[in-house]
This record gives sequence, structure tokens and C-alpha cells, in this order.
Amino acid sequence: MFEQYDLTRKVSDEDYKQILPDLAERFGRLQREARDLDLPVIIVADGWNLSGISTMLHQFVLALDPRLYTYHAASAPNREEEERPFLWRFWLRTPTAGRMAIFDRSWYSRMVAEQVRPEDGGAPERSLHEIVRFERHLTDAGAVVVKLFLHISRDEQARRIERIKKQPAAAFLIDGHEDVRLEHYDLYLPIFEEVIAKTDTPNAPWTVIEAHDRNFTVVRGMSAVVHALEHAIRERRTTVVPRYPAPLQPPSEKRLRLPDPSKHSLSKDEYQEALKRYGERITELQYSLYRERLPLIVVYEGWDAAGKGGAIMRLTRRLNPRICQVEPVGPPNEDESRHHYLWRFWRDLPKKGHVAVFDRSWYGRVLVERVEGLSSPAEVGRAYGEINEFEEAVVDWGAVLVKFWLHIDREEQLRRFIDREEDRERQWKITPEDWRNRSRWDIYAALVAEMLERTDTKAAPWTVISSNDKRYARVEGLQTIVERVERALR
Amino acid sequence: MFEQYDLTRKVSDEDYKQILPDLAERFGRLQREARDLDLPVIIVADGWNLSGISTMLHQFVLALDPRLYTYHAASAPNREEEERPFLWRFWLRTPTAGRMAIFDRSWYSRMVAEQVRPEDGGAPERSLHEIVRFERHLTDAGAVVVKLFLHISRDEQARRIERIKKQPAAAFLIDGHEDVRLEHYDLYLPIFEEVIAKTDTPNAPWTVIEAHDRNFTVVRGMSAVVHALEHAIRERRTTVVPRYPAPLQPPSEKRLRLPDPSKHSLSKDEYQEALKRYGERITELQYSLYRERLPLIVVYEGWDAAGKGGAIMRLTRRLNPRICQVEPVGPPNEDESRHHYLWRFWRDLPKKGHVAVFDRSWYGRVLVERVEGLSSPAEVGRAYGEINEFEEAVVDWGAVLVKFWLHIDREEQLRRFIDREEDRERQWKITPEDWRNRSRWDIYAALVAEMLERTDTKAAPWTVISSNDKRYARVEGLQTIVERVERALR
Repeated sequence: MFEQYDLTRKVSDEDYKQILPDLAERFGRLQREARDLDLPVIIVADGWNLSGISTMLHQFVLALDPRLYTYHAASAPNREEEERPFLWRFWLRTPTAGRMAIFDRSWYSRMVAEQVRPEDGGAPERSLHEIVRFERHLTDAGAVVVKLFLHISRDEQARRIERIKKQPAAAFLIDGHEDVRLEHYDLYLPIFEEVIAKTDTPNAPWTVIEAHDRNFTVVRGMSAVVHALEHAIRERRTTVVPRYPAPLQPPSEKRLRLPDPSKHSLSKDEYQEALKRYGERITELQYSLYRERLPLIVVYEGWDAAGKGGAIMRLTRRLNPRICQVEPVGPPNEDESRHHYLWRFWRDLPKKGHVAVFDRSWYGRVLVERVEGLSSPAEVGRAYGEINEFEEAVVDWGAVLVKFWLHIDREEQLRRFIDREEDRERQWKITPEDWRNRSRWDIYAALVAEMLERTDTKAAPWTVISSNDKRYARVEGLQTIVERVERALR
Repeated sequence: MFEQYDLTRKVSDEDYKQILPDLAERFGRLQREARDLDLPVIIVADGWNLSGISTMLHQFVLALDPRLYTYHAASAPNREEEERPFLWRFWLRTPTAGRMAIFDRSWYSRMVAEQVRPEDGGAPERSLHEIVRFERHLTDAGAVVVKLFLHISRDEQARRIERIKKQPAAAFLIDGHEDVRLEHYDLYLPIFEEVIAKTDTPNAPWTVIEAHDRNFTVVRGMSAVVHALEHAIRERRTTVVPRYPAPLQPPSEKRLRLPDPSKHSLSKDEYQEALKRYGERITELQYSLYRERLPLIVVYEGWDAAGKGGAIMRLTRRLNPRICQVEPVGPPNEDESRHHYLWRFWRDLPKKGHVAVFDRSWYGRVLVERVEGLSSPAEVGRAYGEINEFEEAVVDWGAVLVKFWLHIDREEQLRRFIDREEDRERQWKITPEDWRNRSRWDIYAALVAEMLERTDTKAAPWTVISSNDKRYARVEGLQTIVERVERALR
């Protein structure tokens, strides 16, 4: 692939002085238009060592309003980042609506640096796969992703190393490993070719730039970004995006094939014996998880008043608070709502060996957000696939992922609502919203059935728990966690 | 000090079962009340190695609503944190209004671990000083800070080490350095005594807990927090806090003793020669700053249309974008406004050896926020002192801090507003708000004079730049930065 590029391409200084100011002005204007349209913009600049990435980006940022972009220089992961999936640190750096993120090197060269040895001759399929999904999640939600690869030949790289070694002031641009990288140039060439070929998607295409001439590099790079932005802005302005809420009746009438939640119960003695047994086992297992550096993620979904809080407490009281976090999930705040909806869940992933308990979760996307009419048909259409891919990424990373649906019937919910309202200490637990949700029980029931069907994957199966009897539900939850963790540790 | 504590204190299991449920319920209720009152709550639990901090905190969190607290286990700084002032990572973890932050070990044991060698026999005065200021900034703004120190004797620590070594499952609680720490117990004893004595302030007092008995530790610790919360909530409910805006006329009529901004100018040739000279010098100096790991912080304040943007661009075009960040400061977003107002500026401090340029800054607190009536008299009264202390902390850390006031006169501002409105490409730069601010020129002028007088400190002096002539202003700015950096590097 690389051989097809003509590395002798140049822009003369006179032409550069002619072209650049106009290009820079367009770039600046497009940035403001993207802001006005709430487009998140991601510029990836990657390439060979010393190919002039920051020289080019320097010209980019001079054209831009510094209030609207963030500059990220990718580097080796820090301690927090090492404890999370590879893409975590890049997910966290994705821009909010209307902002621009500039990546001076990116998940591409970091993936190659961290996961590929040159003698492998290729990049791990799984990583390429996850990168493609990552970018698709972003562009599907409206982000513009522009990827530039700065290409120079081995000889040119060698020349630049010699030149830069003679400039002591610029020493901070080099790290002393330049010669090693030069030595590996030929080994990495096919790897980069493969990576670019496999991640050159219609929604996030690559532009390979012949980067021997500085003027040409700047002009070519900025043009690529300007054209991508012009295209995206035109699309956005001319495409009619249906903003009406997704219809509430799921495509086909699904039957709520759930167990009768009143069928199971435990006596007080059975309950206390089992609670103690599984509780103590969980205390032991947390140490094994910690030692093996396996993260545990437990998702509690269920009807209002199904007993999520009580079940969570029976779990967390057995765990050391240093390694256990509870993430209560409500409506996104201002910042979260300007990110991809999965952003905050990526952010809240636990460290390796730690436990994260989600009190409600990303499934709000296909439940409450849908009932409230906050999601468009396209968003709902994508959500199941995105959620499955998110969970698959988390499980591939090594997490034990347990998902509960706490199931009660309508009568039991009514009993609990009334109980709570009559108990002064627990009144705060029940709100008008709970009553409102209750009045939409049938709508929710259909959505729950669809959700359970479409997201019950091999990687992340659902466990539906009959919860009319709280004792049974709590024990069943703990037992499931114990079994899943034991299986993972085997 | 420690010898005065009776380490034999105990709570029997029966008493514990009697007392704890009620205490825990009060704790939970107070947490919700603190949320309703928008109180930020900080619980610091520190103490000797193996003194039972997380065992106690485990009982705390079981009493709490997990939606309203965040648990922070303090540890050695990561790479990002090492690049910032010591307190940076703790500032970042301060809770928003209505939330609770629980610190499982804190800035206290980290300060001792990172800055004190046992043979020093004491902690650095400066660090104690900064910790006291940090806590005062938080409590002055309404935070509740409760500090618990769990005290055990050397013999008890030795017993616990033996016991825990026999529990292989709990191995993750120890790190292998227990015996070394035990050896140093007697050396650290006077250090902790000194630290506690010097940071036991009325606004953030210490409670030392005799921690030999687990039941006693939990009950005593939770009682201390419950009482502190009850007290703070009562205070908040019964104290009439004047919420009217601070009066706009500063206490005494200050005269705007500023240079006539029309006095200085440069010819085009002088300008271009000087711009090039200082610009190139700055490019060189950035490498020296990087090598010496000195951060550079440049603050641009000034009248609307005084030329901040143009001046900033003349600076940043000379800097490598990898080590330079521009922070445009507007109104705080939702999250920022629920933190201490200095929180976002702590967050945005540059790394060592990097450059941060603030396009407007924390001085908004005493300018725009005051004019808009957003600050109470007490807040304005504290602001100057807090800003001076913030800047002193930053300079003590090693930063070169340069503060500019770009000064133009009223007529020049009018000329520029009109110019901008007539230039299609720059119309977006001028907003109705600019005109509104202009109509309050005299009010601003008095506030600017007061600000320049009260925050022109030895650590962080102001440089007022005559800016009617843009050329002069830009060169003057660059020259000042060059001189200040050269002095710092000497």
C-alpha cells in the first residue's frame, strides 16, 4: 500500500503562503459551525516516528479557537489506565457535542506499541475489531472522525534523526529510542499497512499523507480535515433526522416469558443460613478476584421497588469498600449528556481485581429513555447492538459480568409502594415518578421482554430473579454471583 | 499527646448491637439532609498502619446511600499526579455540593509518606500550612470536614501484623512493608503528634480514636461524624447567610492608577523585529522549562476587546502544542459550579515543564461574578485572600506565574467594537454582553483597581500593559514572559 504514495510531493513556499491563510480561515469557520451544530469532532494524527505530526498539528491549532478543542498527546498508559481496558483512556477523551479532540498519536500507534511485537507481523484481530467498533459507536452518534497517517520513508526517517540530534534545544522531542525504531521500520511497515487497511472504514476513513515536505504535509492534512468537516456539516444540514421518539410498541408483540415471581420463597431460617453461607463465600472470593486481577461487574435492573437496594447492600456489606464501588445510575448530568451515552459507563468501569455494582445501568437507554421519548428510532435501533458490543468488550477484557433483572408482579409492587409511603423512615424512597412509571407497567413489560431477548448473549447472559419474596431474591443473587465468579476463577 | 488516650476502651458486643443500628440510621438521615442543604461533606479517616480504618469505614458506608458518596483510597501519586502540586489530587477529589467524599487515608498520611523521612523528626512547615489553607478554603465555602485518626499502640500493631499474616485470604490488605513500618513506629509517633496538633483547627478539628477495640472504633468514629453533621446542619439551618449580592462600590474609593494606555506604541518595523526576537527566544525557553520541569502559567485579563486573543496567539504559535494548553475561562458549567470556585483552576494546572495560558481566569470571581451579583459579601471578602493563597501555592510549587492586565481606554474599546461589527469575519467576536459590560465601565474600573491593588503580591505580581496599540501590547507581553522565565531559570 505505502509504495503507491509519491513521497516527492511538495508545496513551494510561495504556494504555501498563498494557500494556507485561506485554508486556515475555512478551518476556523468550520470549527465554529461544528460547534453550532453540536457535532463532536475527532482528529487523529498518527504516523511514523519524526514524521512531523506535531509540526502539522501546530498549524492546525493556530487556525482554531482554543476554547473549542482539547489536545491529547497519546503516551504509555498511567497506573489508572493500565487497570482498565485498552480503549478506556481514549473513550474518556472523546469530545462532548460541539467540541473537537485532537489526538497527537492515538489508539493506533498505542495499540501497535503496546500489543504488537514486530516479529508478530500483524496486529491482534480483536484489537482492530474493537477499534472499528469504537469509532463506529462514535460516528453513529454523529461524531466526525478524521484520521491522518503521516508517511515517510526509512531513509527520510534516518535523515531526520541525524538532523534532530544536532539541535540540542529540541532534545525533548526525542526519547533516545529513535535508532531502535529506525531499525524496526521495515518490520513495522506491513503492520501499519494492515492496521490502516483493516480500519479504513466508510465512517472513519484514513488519509495517508506523503510527509517528506513540511508545506505539503500541512496543506494536505488541513485540506483533508476541512473537506471532511465540510462534508459532515453539509450532510447534517441537509439530512432530515427524525427527532420524534421511537415508537413504544416493540416491532413484534413479544410475550413476557418470565417466571411467576411469586413461585419462590425461603423461610427465615433457610434465608439466614444461605445468606451467611454465600456472603462469607463472597468475602473469600473477592480476595481471589483481587489476586487474579479479574474485575467483577454486577448490574441490578428490575422493577421499581423490586428490592435492588436491599440486594445490593447484602452484597456490598461482604466486600471491602476499598475495592468495591456502587454506581447509582440516574439521568445523565449536563456533561454526560453531551457525550456518547455509553461514555459514563466506560468511565465507571472498575479497576482490575475490583468490583463495580451498577444500581440501574446502560439499560436505561432501552427502558426509561425510551418510555420518556428521549431516544429516536435510529438510536433505539442501534442501542441493543451497541450494548452487546460494549458488554462483549468488557468480558473480553476479563471482567466477570453478572446482570440481574429483579422481577416482581404488579400486585407486589403496589403492596411495597404503599408500605413505603406509610413508613416515615422510608417515605423518601418513593416518589411521584415511581407512581408514574407504575401506570405504564404494560409498556415497560413489553420493553423489558424485548431487552431480555435481545441482550441475553453468550458473553453476558441475563439472570431473571423471582423477587416477590425478598429473601429468595437476595439469596438467589448472591448464589449466582458466587457461581459465576467460581467458574471464572476455575 | 497520644499518651493521654486510654487504649483499653471497649464496647461490648451487646452494647454494640444496641447502639449501632440507631447511630447508623441517624448517619443515613443526616447524609440525606446534607444533600438537601447542598452541604459538601468530607470524611478523613487516617491513622496507623492496620489500625482498622477500612473496617470502620465499611460500617460507615453500609449506613449510607451509595448514590451520595464517593470512596477514595489514598495511595502513591500516579504519573499525572506527580506532575502537579501535592494537594492537586485531593483538590480534584473534593465533593460537589450535597455529596460526601470519604478518604480512606488522606493528604495527611500521604504527606508524611511522601515528604517526611522519620529521621527528620517533623513535617515540613510549608506542607502543614498548605493543608490548613486547603481545608479552610473548603470549610469557608460551606464544606463540613471531619477528621478521624485511629490510634493503636506499637504492641497492638505488632499483634495485628502477626494475626493478619496467618490469614492468606486477607493478604491483599498488606503490602509486605508492615515490619518496616512497625520498626518506625516510635520515630513516626512524634511526627503524627505534631501534624495533628498543627492541623487541629476549629473549622476542621481532629478526633483521635482509641482503636484497639473494633466495636469502640466504629461507634466512636460514627458518633464523631454524626455529631459534626448534626452541628453543621443545625448551624446551616439557623444561621442567616446574607444571600444578597456584594455591594458594587468598593469599600473605599480607589483611584485607577493605571498608565495612560495610549502613551506607548511601536512602528511596524520595530514591532516585527521585536516580535520575532522575543518569539524565537520563547521557543528556546520552552525547552529549558521542560528540561528543568518548571511549569509556566500565563494569565491574560483585560478589558473586552483589549487584545487578549491576539496576544495569546503570538505566544502559543511559538510553543509546541504538546506542552502548551490554552484554558479559556467562561461561566462555570453545572459540575464546576457545584465545586469550590477554585476547583476548576486547580484542575487545569499544567504539568511540570508545561505551559498553561489562561484566557481570563480565577479573577472572574472578583470581576464579572461581582458585577453580575453572583457573589455574596462574605464570598467577595474571602476571595482576595483565597486567590493570593492559591497563587502562592502555585508559585511555591515552582511555577512561573505571569499575570497580565491588558489596559485600553474607553474610546479605544468603542473603536474596536465598531470595527469588529463591521468585519463579517469577526462579527462573532462581539456579543450583546460585550456592549452590556461596556455600559458598566466605571463599575468595572473600580473593581479592577481594587483587584490590582489587593492581589499584586510578591509571589505573583501584576503586569499592566498599555494596549491601545496592539503591537506594543503584544511585544510587551512576550518580553515580560521572556524576562520572568529567564529570571526563574537563573
